[in-house]
Amino acid sequence: MHVMITGAGGMIGRKFAESIANDDRIGDRTVETLTLVDIVPPDVATDFTGTRNVVEADLSNEGVAADLVARQPDVLVHLAAIVSGEAEADLEKGYRINLDGTRALLDAIRAAHETDGYTPRVVYASSLAVFGAPFPDKIGDDFFLTPLTSYGTQKAMGELLLDDYSRRGFLDGVGIRFPTICIRPGKPNKAASGFFSGILREPLEGKEAVLPVDDDVRHYHASPRSAVGFLRHAAALDTQMLGSRRNMTMPGVSATVADQIEALRNVAGDETVALIRREPDPTIEKIVSGWPRDFDVRRAREAGFTAEDSFEEIIRVYIEDEMEGRAPRA
Amino acid sequence: MHVMITGAGGMIGRKFAESIANDDRIGDRTVETLTLVDIVPPDVATDFTGTRNVVEADLSNEGVAADLVARQPDVLVHLAAIVSGEAEADLEKGYRINLDGTRALLDAIRAAHETDGYTPRVVYASSLAVFGAPFPDKIGDDFFLTPLTSYGTQKAMGELLLDDYSRRGFLDGVGIRFPTICIRPGKPNKAASGFFSGILREPLEGKEAVLPVDDDVRHYHASPRSAVGFLRHAAALDTQMLGSRRNMTMPGVSATVADQIEALRNVAGDETVALIRREPDPTIEKIVSGWPRDFDVRRAREAGFTAEDSFEEIIRVYIEDEMEGRAPRA
Repeated sequence: MHVMITGAGGMIGRKFAESIANDDRIGDRTVETLTLVDIVPPDVATDFTGTRNVVEADLSNEGVAADLVARQPDVLVHLAAIVSGEAEADLEKGYRINLDGTRALLDAIRAAHETDGYTPRVVYASSLAVFGAPFPDKIGDDFFLTPLTSYGTQKAMGELLLDDYSRRGFLDGVGIRFPTICIRPGKPNKAASGFFSGILREPLEGKEAVLPVDDDVRHYHASPRSAVGFLRHAAALDTQMLGSRRNMTMPGVSATVADQIEALRNVAGDETVALIRREPDPTIEKIVSGWPRDFDVRRAREAGFTAEDSFEEIIRVYIEDEMEGRAPRA
Repeated sequence: MHVMITGAGGMIGRKFAESIANDDRIGDRTVETLTLVDIVPPDVATDFTGTRNVVEADLSNEGVAADLVARQPDVLVHLAAIVSGEAEADLEKGYRINLDGTRALLDAIRAAHETDGYTPRVVYASSLAVFGAPFPDKIGDDFFLTPLTSYGTQKAMGELLLDDYSRRGFLDGVGIRFPTICIRPGKPNKAASGFFSGILREPLEGKEAVLPVDDDVRHYHASPRSAVGFLRHAAALDTQMLGSRRNMTMPGVSATVADQIEALRNVAGDETVALIRREPDPTIEKIVSGWPRDFDVRRAREAGFTAEDSFEEIIRVYIEDEMEGRAPRA
């Protein structure tokens, strides 16, 4: 089987590619070819034992989508995107990459389908950003799309396109709305959501972290390991059960900041928790107040997607995957 | 005030233009200029006493949107679209006109906004086709978009774009999901929905009509007069109350075919009803079975939109507006 990943250099793309290098069985098939696409050649999954192609490409450029599709991957995992903050700051770039780039890819598949019947599995990365306040405390599978950012709008438009092109049989789509990924490895960043990971990751590393919101702020999370699991599961899923509704919110852990801190205390002790410094930031408070808090994800669970059950588990996954098991003990 | 109508040659565009010619007050303003746009020069509202411009234009052609927006209408009513059947038969044309045409218009407004602060009211014609089965018997305001046609997909994508561009302040949008318009004037057509009007219109004219579905089929309707009322109301609406959710399903009458026939009997008698001939058509049965049956349209009602309360009223509106009051009496 040939798996192509766009945005393979990003955090999730990289981890997904590495997971294939470690375990090349997806469903009942073996990945023989892995094609890694990004605007900078992604230096990932270098120990993949099958055929590994690296493609430097910008999907929003004319002809690029057709060139990629000409390689006829069996599974195309489309992660390439401009992130939320940048799509809000640069409207044209956001629409060009997130909407037009996705559409170019799906249209290239349609053209190939019409020529020779090519019908790949397309796994599309969507986001909780398709939902904006007001909404119920627990958002169900049939709640409407209410993005409050251009990024969320672009992702929602891509979801609709994925459904339409799947319904028409040009491709076999699965859309994945990722929870906020926690604990995000790496350095602190300026994303408004950064503190959700920062207040755990930094103290685990013995460093101070700033908490800019109240302890009762609730949000919805899954680990990077779960994110990779969603993609692996989506790549092999029997889509018959999805009918014409190909996009699903993924399972995750709904937790308050207080829940996160208590989990950290249970896993790594009081001294670790003491590294969290409260420094309220009204701007971040305001942004986060519009974010979803919890989901009822029956469809995704019925389709077999799984994630962590608790924040302690999310923290332990980080310690195993990113710290080689070496973290402060409670 | 300057009102521009795209798709002014269509049934609703024509009636809306005529209504402005008859009554040039919209809200507390007077329409001084009326610009009628269509791919064939629309021969409507010829007795409008203000300045009347006719523009022959295809929005999907390069530069056309910018030329239209350069006229800086205060209210832009965007009705131009490829209809459902054609958008399904010709995918590229449907996306080009319904999605790209709408986007070109909104982007031209954005460019003008960025140059000189231009921020028009945009009234966007959407459709019940953004909803596809399965859905509840009564679809609420927060049910998700589940189109089962490319037309519905394109309209849903346009809704999302209207919301995003309104949220960003480039324009002040109101999206109108029209019920099925009944009784549609004119000749019988081949649209799957045609019989809903045909079984009333043809008998009222003393002609036979074919009913291809069961009497218990339920659907959701409003008169052409109500459709014009929606547009007039949307043109002058205080959008503050809508927040960032600019698209609404309009009020209408939910009725079974049996309800329609009983209303016809009450208004025009048994002899008229006897002109309906039952001739089941499994293809039409199947298409119609995926259509919405009823809506709970609290938001639109709170915003002051109104329609008929009964099918008898819908029939009487037709007799008044299309038959000069001369119809068979019960």
